[in-house]
Amino acid sequence: MIDVAQTDELAALRQWRRSFHRFPEPAWCEYRTTSLICAALAEAGFEIRIGEQLLSPSMVMGRDIDEAQEKARALQQGADADWLARLTHTGLLAVLDTGRPGPSLALRVDLDAVRVRECVSADHLPQQLGFASASDGVMHACAHDAHAAIAVVLGQLLAGYQHTLCGKIKLFFQPAEEGCRAGKAVASGGQLDDVDQLLAIHLGIHAHSGELVVCPEGFLSSTKFDVEFIGKPAHAGLEPNAGANALSAACQAVSQMLAIAPHRDGMTRINIGHLHAGQERNVVPAYAFLQGETRGATAALNEYVFSAVQRIVQGVAMSHGVDYMIRRQGEAISIENSPALVHTLTLLGDELGYNVIHSRPFGASDDAGFLIDRVQRRGGQAAYIVIGADLKAGHHTDQFDFDEDVMGRALNLLFHWFARQLTVTVSQPD
Amino acid sequence: MIDVAQTDELAALRQWRRSFHRFPEPAWCEYRTTSLICAALAEAGFEIRIGEQLLSPSMVMGRDIDEAQEKARALQQGADADWLARLTHTGLLAVLDTGRPGPSLALRVDLDAVRVRECVSADHLPQQLGFASASDGVMHACAHDAHAAIAVVLGQLLAGYQHTLCGKIKLFFQPAEEGCRAGKAVASGGQLDDVDQLLAIHLGIHAHSGELVVCPEGFLSSTKFDVEFIGKPAHAGLEPNAGANALSAACQAVSQMLAIAPHRDGMTRINIGHLHAGQERNVVPAYAFLQGETRGATAALNEYVFSAVQRIVQGVAMSHGVDYMIRRQGEAISIENSPALVHTLTLLGDELGYNVIHSRPFGASDDAGFLIDRVQRRGGQAAYIVIGADLKAGHHTDQFDFDEDVMGRALNLLFHWFARQLTVTVSQPD
Amino acid sequence: MIDVAQTDELAALRQWRRSFHRFPEPAWCEYRTTSLICAALAEAGFEIRIGEQLLSPSMVMGRDIDEAQEKARALQQGADADWLARLTHTGLLAVLDTGRPGPSLALRVDLDAVRVRECVSADHLPQQLGFASASDGVMHACAHDAHAAIAVVLGQLLAGYQHTLCGKIKLFFQPAEEGCRAGKAVASGGQLDDVDQLLAIHLGIHAHSGELVVCPEGFLSSTKFDVEFIGKPAHAGLEPNAGANALSAACQAVSQMLAIAPHRDGMTRINIGHLHAGQERNVVPAYAFLQGETRGATAALNEYVFSAVQRIVQGVAMSHGVDYMIRRQGEAISIENSPALVHTLTLLGDELGYNVIHSRPFGASDDAGFLIDRVQRRGGQAAYIVIGADLKAGHHTDQFDFDEDVMGRALNLLFHWFARQLTVTVSQPD
Amino acid sequence: MIDVAQTDELAALRQWRRSFHRFPEPAWCEYRTTSLICAALAEAGFEIRIGEQLLSPSMVMGRDIDEAQEKARALQQGADADWLARLTHTGLLAVLDTGRPGPSLALRVDLDAVRVRECVSADHLPQQLGFASASDGVMHACAHDAHAAIAVVLGQLLAGYQHTLCGKIKLFFQPAEEGCRAGKAVASGGQLDDVDQLLAIHLGIHAHSGELVVCPEGFLSSTKFDVEFIGKPAHAGLEPNAGANALSAACQAVSQMLAIAPHRDGMTRINIGHLHAGQERNVVPAYAFLQGETRGATAALNEYVFSAVQRIVQGVAMSHGVDYMIRRQGEAISIENSPALVHTLTLLGDELGYNVIHSRPFGASDDAGFLIDRVQRRGGQAAYIVIGADLKAGHHTDQFDFDEDVMGRALNLLFHWFARQLTVTVSQPD
Repeated sequence: MIDVAQTDELAALRQWRRSFHRFPEPAWCEYRTTSLICAALAEAGFEIRIGEQLLSPSMVMGRDIDEAQEKARALQQGADADWLARLTHTGLLAVLDTGRPGPSLALRVDLDAVRVRECVSADHLPQQLGFASASDGVMHACAHDAHAAIAVVLGQLLAGYQHTLCGKIKLFFQPAEEGCRAGKAVASGGQLDDVDQLLAIHLGIHAHSGELVVCPEGFLSSTKFDVEFIGKPAHAGLEPNAGANALSAACQAVSQMLAIAPHRDGMTRINIGHLHAGQERNVVPAYAFLQGETRGATAALNEYVFSAVQRIVQGVAMSHGVDYMIRRQGEAISIENSPALVHTLTLLGDELGYNVIHSRPFGASDDAGFLIDRVQRRGGQAAYIVIGADLKAGHHTDQFDFDEDVMGRALNLLFHWFARQLTVTVSQPD
Repeated sequence: MIDVAQTDELAALRQWRRSFHRFPEPAWCEYRTTSLICAALAEAGFEIRIGEQLLSPSMVMGRDIDEAQEKARALQQGADADWLARLTHTGLLAVLDTGRPGPSLALRVDLDAVRVRECVSADHLPQQLGFASASDGVMHACAHDAHAAIAVVLGQLLAGYQHTLCGKIKLFFQPAEEGCRAGKAVASGGQLDDVDQLLAIHLGIHAHSGELVVCPEGFLSSTKFDVEFIGKPAHAGLEPNAGANALSAACQAVSQMLAIAPHRDGMTRINIGHLHAGQERNVVPAYAFLQGETRGATAALNEYVFSAVQRIVQGVAMSHGVDYMIRRQGEAISIENSPALVHTLTLLGDELGYNVIHSRPFGASDDAGFLIDRVQRRGGQAAYIVIGADLKAGHHTDQFDFDEDVMGRALNLLFHWFARQLTVTVSQPD
Repeated sequence: MIDVAQTDELAALRQWRRSFHRFPEPAWCEYRTTSLICAALAEAGFEIRIGEQLLSPSMVMGRDIDEAQEKARALQQGADADWLARLTHTGLLAVLDTGRPGPSLALRVDLDAVRVRECVSADHLPQQLGFASASDGVMHACAHDAHAAIAVVLGQLLAGYQHTLCGKIKLFFQPAEEGCRAGKAVASGGQLDDVDQLLAIHLGIHAHSGELVVCPEGFLSSTKFDVEFIGKPAHAGLEPNAGANALSAACQAVSQMLAIAPHRDGMTRINIGHLHAGQERNVVPAYAFLQGETRGATAALNEYVFSAVQRIVQGVAMSHGVDYMIRRQGEAISIENSPALVHTLTLLGDELGYNVIHSRPFGASDDAGFLIDRVQRRGGQAAYIVIGADLKAGHHTDQFDFDEDVMGRALNLLFHWFARQLTVTVSQPD
Repeated sequence: MIDVAQTDELAALRQWRRSFHRFPEPAWCEYRTTSLICAALAEAGFEIRIGEQLLSPSMVMGRDIDEAQEKARALQQGADADWLARLTHTGLLAVLDTGRPGPSLALRVDLDAVRVRECVSADHLPQQLGFASASDGVMHACAHDAHAAIAVVLGQLLAGYQHTLCGKIKLFFQPAEEGCRAGKAVASGGQLDDVDQLLAIHLGIHAHSGELVVCPEGFLSSTKFDVEFIGKPAHAGLEPNAGANALSAACQAVSQMLAIAPHRDGMTRINIGHLHAGQERNVVPAYAFLQGETRGATAALNEYVFSAVQRIVQGVAMSHGVDYMIRRQGEAISIENSPALVHTLTLLGDELGYNVIHSRPFGASDDAGFLIDRVQRRGGQAAYIVIGADLKAGHHTDQFDFDEDVMGRALNLLFHWFARQLTVTVSQPD
């Protein structure tokens, strides 16, 4: 088999990845990233679908941004002005329809960065080479820059082969994976309903360079939620009795949430990752805001925890005489890879020299689950695979960095997965 | 003026007091005490009123006793068998109606001991002299033994003078003052409705031997309450999720109750004095029981705290998915002495050589407030006075002991208060 | 193979079991049970080892009993007076040494009942047949009555065959399994150090009549602990600031303990099953007592939780200005059956018509783990097996009852396990 | 007596006050205000003392500002550029030394605004008249704009009379009264050590236009503090055990602080007005920040609460395995006016037509206490007075506004207080 990741492709991968890394955009703010990919793949011959063509706006979660400001920022950071003007939501679907009968194959990657301040140490490679984050407090610390880069170059590459291909290629560049805020909306958008096979990829989760995990396990169901408590302010010295203390309510709620009993049937998690309450030292705090998440090994376990959260918020609000709001801000479900697709990938990985690992714990959440579930429910095959990559530091840490060489190997793997199934000469031996 | 507390009276005071001290009976269990006083004052010529003649049973609070067992115990400890057989509730009213027109004057004392284990140290006088508590864990540590002794001897003394007296004498021996469980029921019993003047006494609260505080201040309104949380048990190892943790609910409730905000308008208090929850180490606890009290400088302040308690219990029960019960087990209201009566007592105290203190903080609760309020509402005068007594140790402590000599002085004061107003020759100078 | 559980044996099993059931004895109180077994097996020819011959007193945990009172009670309930007089700790080891060279085989059963009030419903078999618990609040609700009965009859049966046997038989009747309070002491007693094979049995945990689980899984490591907080009392109305609130400390400790973070490596548990604090409603509570347990899928996980408990108790005591004590009251470790012994039992179970289940979750703790570990560390084989039994209601519930017929099948299984390995004619074919 | 508050003075008062109101500056940011007052009073002939001439930098609390940015902002808002360049800390002392022997009299006012967003309602006078805050989220909602205006115009007025005056006039314009952050530093600066009499004023606290409260009561001692908890982050789904949860520690600390027992000796308060913890929803929060305050009717009571806060922070940090920091950010002590000065002011108030109120509860804190204490300790007289003013809404609320006419009356009162004591002709009758 040819190795498509030659010098030019490797350079292109690096260039895209470092450009994305330099200008990281958090969930729902990926305007620069989206516009540049739209432009590149439109030029390569793909049909671009954005906004409501891609996702169902009513299912969007956790999108609380200043759109005008983000677009202005994106423009300043080199976004494609024409595409930028056409964007409402971020994310895109690039479609290459060969016009020849054949299967519809899809890839899903993600685009967003995380809110981590990139480390400034001199031995951090992005600092050395000058592509460290230009946006303070935002960083590509989960390799989505690589995911996007791989998919762009893959699209350009496949476009060059399109006359030898049949069927349809769909490249999903999903926004807002962090916080699991967009998967449900994309799955509901209808664009997966003609897909026969869907592949979702992630670099480096518990896998070294050269490894390919074809059936990662332990994807957690999860609900991301915000809680507000709204009380009454009062002068803390003069008339504390006149207040309704929202900060105290928040603290008691946290205390009770962290004590939700574990479950016989398997792993559960609860975390309150952020709490902000009150303003002035001498005022009974009238407002509190919490951001949290629940997880469970199954949807039922996640629901067990989340329903306890709801009960606690309601009870604590009552006992403190405050009002409350609970909002779901993200959601993920567990993932089961389709066996046939796992088999295909195992063989392909072996052929390409990967050390194929059947199963390894994933232990986190990814809203690709909604896309995978959508395809599987309609009879298609879908899988989430981990492409190994040596890391400098763990995901979501400020020193995160990965072995860039794995991008070429990933490109090669994905190219052959598409090409083998869609190439006319391969599938129709004469 | 004659001093009625002569050798015989002093001996009688000591004997009664030590007998009561030796066999202390907690709230609602004062069967021995009640029966002996009934017998003594009936013999002296008083009419005895007990049970529903004294108090309104539906207003009784915090009475959870094994009546048969308590009566058996009382009998063994020397109760009067005849009177014992006639008792339902403890406590009595002894009435001496002279038949001659005149005012109706009343005295209120209390009978019950507290649940404190008396100290066994050799230098504790009751141990030395052999009248320390024979009932383990119960002790007269609040001088109610003295109060009762004084009122019995006073009754016997006044009975000896009855041919020279007019009007009516009513001696209220109230049960269950500790926990403020009987005052409301006695006030509702109707026996105060013909009383023109009521005096309630207490020995030794912040006052030394020889002092007489005629207008103590800072009586707190108070509510005594019990809370139950009823959850669901579950094996803590196998299936913790199946439980509804009543112990955890109790702990969260305590935490929230202790944090009830103080009030602009004055002093408030909350205490959870007892908590019992769960049974087996390895079972999610399905039951919790709390005993607490709220206090306030005014009834409104007490109600502010108690309504917060109710709100907290309800909210915590909801957040834990458990049921709850709240029961009022005792109640006290604040006390304002009638100025005219304060004036009378000031003059009398001066005459008898007391160091009369007008006002001094009391800082606790006494359900005599209900009796005083009843008399005052109907146009009568009522007052609560503190008769000073040097103490060995604070009230409700295991080393509590007081200067017994003050009993004689108290007897003399009370005798003259009655006699001066009721003696025919005095009130009708010829 | 012969079936040794004939009419007489079945009758004996029922009689012993019902006698134990009628007079259940909680942990460390098994004086009646122990004395009767001593007498029976001594008569059958066994050498009896008790007290320090059986266990290491310094390793005893959670033994807080009134020995004189328990012995008096046992005597009244029909204990063997001679043996009773010789007992210090409960429990016994019965040894049958054939004098002929051969392996040393041991069985371990447990004796104690649990603190559950037996149900009084007419359709509860022990009530119908008149062998329900005569000790209020104590019940054999975990089948230890059956375990003990089986081992006694087994001993009597094997004694009858002793002339045909070689090697040594050791029957361990362990006290105080509930709360895991004795296993460590028995393991340290030295009596397992010459044992080649050890079998521990339990009836009915997740297995039906006719099933035999030869390799139950998921035994939890566990620590049972008590915590005391010692503060200072104060009048809650007059001077709350003078107190150091032990009840509040206990509540905060519970709140923090229940929130100990779960662990990446597997299942953990924490439970506070009992809390008792304070006495008087109007006194700042000066004392609190908690009973709890931690569990973990491994010893390290259990230790992770227990060390957090220790840190929390220390921190909470500091923040409340109270003193504290933590005491370990019981301990269990996880169990791994010896493969060779599992193999033997699988074959034997098959032969005897059992439906042999290899593995099934156990999901609880048993301090037999210390005995098993001791044998395995010295090169012996050891296993814990579950002999299925249909149940009327779950273990530790007041309606617990099991299918008595399984006792005969269990007897037969254990007899053949001993006999097959120890019978001279079997092991030495001529 | 002449009324010095004529048309010109009233116009000047309004102009200064509205200028300060338009550009409110929070604590330690009063660069515009300070520079303009420096310029005005220097021009009037006062000697200006700033920075270390005024206060002791090592005693400064709660100053965490971006000095360069605040100065730039002040310049843009019309600060005096020359004086601005010379400022380090804000605040000033303006001294008028007549050179003639005589007493040294001082006035203390404050300069800073509070962090409240001014209401935008059309019927809010500052909105109507166009002098509402130009700085979003900052507002003069405590009348310090008036205090400063009165003192400036007073200075200008007194300067005009300087040839008829003896002794020394010292006008203290204290920064950072909100949060009680500067009083201690100014008191330690040494500039009060030659002051014979000191007057501190406040408009409108519980007093109507025309009232003068010469001996307000109930100034609370207070400590303002910040707490940080520093834990360890961890992925909340993958490895929660690896974290040390600072947010949970903060919540438990709040819960315990709000439950600090009230005190026998009088009023205490605790408030946590602000809490910020954690960043990312799915990360165990590694950092928490709290801002709080304690208060007490006396310094001892405040210390009782603050020492409990310290104990709680330490204990909670231990129980959560996190580090902590506690920083005092502000401090106030209680105030007792000098009787002689109260007497002087009573007579003067009467003469000027004020309705003089001797005493009325103040119920809040003011760090003028440190200045007053400093003067009194050295034998001088000092007092804090409230000059009544009708209010539209309470202090520190977004609709706060006061009757501007009271500024003229206040000016007159203060002028005569200085003039009567310092005028040569008055003090030296010929």
